[in-house]
Amino acid sequence: MTHSLFDTDAPHGEPSRLTAFTGNRLDRDAEHRTEDSLGQALALGGATILAFSGNRLLLKENEGTLDPLFDREELEPLLPDLAGAILLGMRQDGSPRLAVPVQRAAEELSLLFRLTDPRSALRDGLVAEEVLGEVAQAVSLLHWNDANRFCGKCGTRTESRLAGYKRICPACAHMMFPRTDPVVIMLTVDEARDRVLLGRGHHFTPGMYSALAGFVEPAETIEDAVRRETREESGIVTGRVRYHASQPWPMPHSLMIGCYAEALSEDIRIDTQELEDCRWFSRAEVVAMLAADPAGEGPSAPLRGAIAHRLLRDWAEWRR
Amino acid sequence: MTHSLFDTDAPHGEPSRLTAFTGNRLDRDAEHRTEDSLGQALALGGATILAFSGNRLLLKENEGTLDPLFDREELEPLLPDLAGAILLGMRQDGSPRLAVPVQRAAEELSLLFRLTDPRSALRDGLVAEEVLGEVAQAVSLLHWNDANRFCGKCGTRTESRLAGYKRICPACAHMMFPRTDPVVIMLTVDEARDRVLLGRGHHFTPGMYSALAGFVEPAETIEDAVRRETREESGIVTGRVRYHASQPWPMPHSLMIGCYAEALSEDIRIDTQELEDCRWFSRAEVVAMLAADPAGEGPSAPLRGAIAHRLLRDWAEWRR
Repeated sequence: MTHSLFDTDAPHGEPSRLTAFTGNRLDRDAEHRTEDSLGQALALGGATILAFSGNRLLLKENEGTLDPLFDREELEPLLPDLAGAILLGMRQDGSPRLAVPVQRAAEELSLLFRLTDPRSALRDGLVAEEVLGEVAQAVSLLHWNDANRFCGKCGTRTESRLAGYKRICPACAHMMFPRTDPVVIMLTVDEARDRVLLGRGHHFTPGMYSALAGFVEPAETIEDAVRRETREESGIVTGRVRYHASQPWPMPHSLMIGCYAEALSEDIRIDTQELEDCRWFSRAEVVAMLAADPAGEGPSAPLRGAIAHRLLRDWAEWRR
Repeated sequence: MTHSLFDTDAPHGEPSRLTAFTGNRLDRDAEHRTEDSLGQALALGGATILAFSGNRLLLKENEGTLDPLFDREELEPLLPDLAGAILLGMRQDGSPRLAVPVQRAAEELSLLFRLTDPRSALRDGLVAEEVLGEVAQAVSLLHWNDANRFCGKCGTRTESRLAGYKRICPACAHMMFPRTDPVVIMLTVDEARDRVLLGRGHHFTPGMYSALAGFVEPAETIEDAVRRETREESGIVTGRVRYHASQPWPMPHSLMIGCYAEALSEDIRIDTQELEDCRWFSRAEVVAMLAADPAGEGPSAPLRGAIAHRLLRDWAEWRR
């Protein structure tokens, strides 16, 4: 029996697939976007469109079902901003899927449609997993385009290019590309005492505890970011780091990098600026949290679909 | 013998430590930067400074040695831009290390100092590993600050805050934070035929072949980015993905995420826009490349210190 580099002792082969916002199956063909991609896609028959008011997706309510897909004609009365349109990619049948911001007032739109941001769409299960991944892609790009309407180098108004994936400054030729912010999120494991470190931010829902997290700093490895953030927020020293899964987190455009960290110390010193509480949880407590009603009394785990949930559940289910 | 989550079959425990630009040992204390951090650091005795002209580090040449460290007094004649100064972090002895852009003309500076960008400093071994990591941090932040001198939302001139880690717009209150671009770089492995996939970009040094790479797209997992980039550039379909190591790459502010990808197909279809060549290399060829003189005739591996070198070498050394 040959040993494979890709064998793993983890309970699931690719845990990234089990997190939310990862259902996107569009062919992005990222290497071949051109200035004509958007026009060609809009001209193709069968183009389907996700429509946004700011970062909120428009859903058509039809006899109790919610439908996020618009065609060109349905979009017209909503005042689409086609110069700000984004080609998300091609569907398996060869038809394009786009994201288009609309300019009609949000108050008017809310009389005609249900409006939802990505977090609410996830929590309330408003769209299919595949569409939820496309919404994440759309919101990340819409937010980035909106935050770069003027050139950071010279202050001139910029223009969208490459179907929404590039902006250029007509004055100084500065080019801007979409931004993705890497964030480490880590479950620190004390293997000798069979327990894990969890914290509560000040704005968490009551009772919920999660893995610690923070932005990767400029010029830092993933492993160093995990150890630094853990030490800064909890005072706990960690050693070895094991990557486990990643997840897009479109609030507005993060890449969550989920890891396990090996605890080398015990005494917690909470950074009260960042955390309201931080403590060790035994295996039995974690199992209870994963089964708990989030609206109940005791501590609860993060939402199923969140990468922190995945880290906790996979630790509890690990083959040993 | 208890099984640990942190045991690995890889030839090195934390391969990220073996890549270049990772020697930074400063205490960044990222969670506690304030408006006063920079002033306090500059007022402290013993502050040492890395000085930059654009993205180039100034090195003092003293009797054949190169010294990158300036004190406040040495900096004065170089016209330091203290409003653009960055607190990199604290050294073990409690003294601060800063990065300061200087405004004296580059032509004048080049008569007094040796000027070097991060890539040349790595290639020519001009500074110690620890300083090289600090230079990576400094260049990433200097570049980001320079690219955001005007507000992307309203075009107003922005101001530096939090010792160089935040910019704010005095007109619309928009806040900007440092940018790090995640890039996947992957060695695709055909385990059945014991070979790996390598390509040559159009601007590579003659004979050099490397792992394929590309930016993570908005709202994409690391694993999906690996499979998409491999398919787009080479036509090769991949399955399982294994994270191996990460590396800061300050040209200008990328985070390289190094993975192995499991080949599921054989026939290469080169994207000639991206690659000049792409082919399979046997184990014997890889071993020869790792030992080859980069200036010689045959194919050679990327620079020692580059994460692509690490991926190749560790595959060759893997315990089987």
